[in-house]
Amino acid sequence: MNEKYWYLKRCPVFGDLTPEQIQLLETQCYVSEFQRGEVIYLPGDLGSSAMLLARGRVRIYHVTQEGKQALLGFVEPSELFGELSAYNGSVREEYAEASENSLVVLLPREVVGRMMVEHPSVSMRLTALFGLRLKRIERRLKSLLFRSSRERLMHLLLELSERYGRPTEDGILITRKFSHQDMASIIGATRETVTITLGELQEEGVLQIARRRITLKDTDAMIVATGFGPLQMART
Amino acid sequence: MNEKYWYLKRCPVFGDLTPEQIQLLETQCYVSEFQRGEVIYLPGDLGSSAMLLARGRVRIYHVTQEGKQALLGFVEPSELFGELSAYNGSVREEYAEASENSLVVLLPREVVGRMMVEHPSVSMRLTALFGLRLKRIERRLKSLLFRSSRERLMHLLLELSERYGRPTEDGILITRKFSHQDMASIIGATRETVTITLGELQEEGVLQIARRRITLKDTDAMIVATGFGPLQMART
Repeated sequence: MNEKYWYLKRCPVFGDLTPEQIQLLETQCYVSEFQRGEVIYLPGDLGSSAMLLARGRVRIYHVTQEGKQALLGFVEPSELFGELSAYNGSVREEYAEASENSLVVLLPREVVGRMMVEHPSVSMRLTALFGLRLKRIERRLKSLLFRSSRERLMHLLLELSERYGRPTEDGILITRKFSHQDMASIIGATRETVTITLGELQEEGVLQIARRRITLKDTDAMIVATGFGPLQMART
Repeated sequence: MNEKYWYLKRCPVFGDLTPEQIQLLETQCYVSEFQRGEVIYLPGDLGSSAMLLARGRVRIYHVTQEGKQALLGFVEPSELFGELSAYNGSVREEYAEASENSLVVLLPREVVGRMMVEHPSVSMRLTALFGLRLKRIERRLKSLLFRSSRERLMHLLLELSERYGRPTEDGILITRKFSHQDMASIIGATRETVTITLGELQEEGVLQIARRRITLKDTDAMIVATGFGPLQMART
């Protein structure tokens, strides 16, 4: 049993498989390494594999016609990505780029298809994953319609706190660092606007920034200001 | 065999079921009528049923804190809606309102769950449906980031032409009528902006409006201007 086995085992989508079933799956997957900054796939590529991030970090983005990067999200270890194109065999519509040196397990399209047919649990969990993403992205869409950059930024911080937050004495610490440019690319604002707004929110006591990490001090006020609803996890 | 049977039969998600299987399903569903303007569900409701629109039309929207309606989409006959909350048992996050007198088949949550386990084809098709929605909404999100109202409107018209378009001598006719306010609510603009921009686009020869129906005369130019990518249908 090699390292691939352990990476697969840790991925929630395969959570109900027996060790033997994972071992069999393991023989049908490939491992590929990507250096920081390397592109893993780009628009127009055929979605021939679903990908599981074993180590590192991946950014998923879209480049607008004016050459601006619209950041759609980050992938963290044990998460699947690019599985939608692999599922329906369509072409990639975004860029996936290693933002740290990354190790990726490739699950060929036909392997994923077979797994779904043979193991209803994989199918159910994959559906739940799609459902969760759908909900997340619908929420994001709602936050973009009719909202100011300030509200969009607060909404994003709440979203990040849900995924990366750890309660501390001062409030919810977002454990991962995000550059102002990254935040701007996610909410469709300029870097300057993000910097200014973060400064204002700090001034108002809503949050606190120390060593490039953000602590949300008053999430209740932020929730009221943005109408942020908690994301109910799809049952997996 | 009553009318419910035929409505279920026409829904693509159940496309691979035998007549006997649909008949059995039919006995577990309910039919409910809604008058034009009536709310079918609202935020906070428990997602206890997936819904199949048999007749009529349904609008799915979200109300912002300022009381603005953000229109997420329309449901047409034979389409499922509200199936995501039913799938994971979470609460509704949007409003669904009958925009015409509508007939709805309610599929209780536990019935959908059982169908997915017993019939892999239902599970696969439902997953494909989620996948398609995910792709559609990701594309919508991208169109909102860093884009002018003019580009958003063109993007929306292309999206509508994909769903409701019919080729004619003059171009692609969008067969359904949409009010300027509806279009504004989808792209997060004001009604005035939509009216003015449609006028400009007509002046430029990009489209033509006659009897409140829009014909796209130069979709190529619109695709270039917006970077609209064709939506590849999930294989169902």
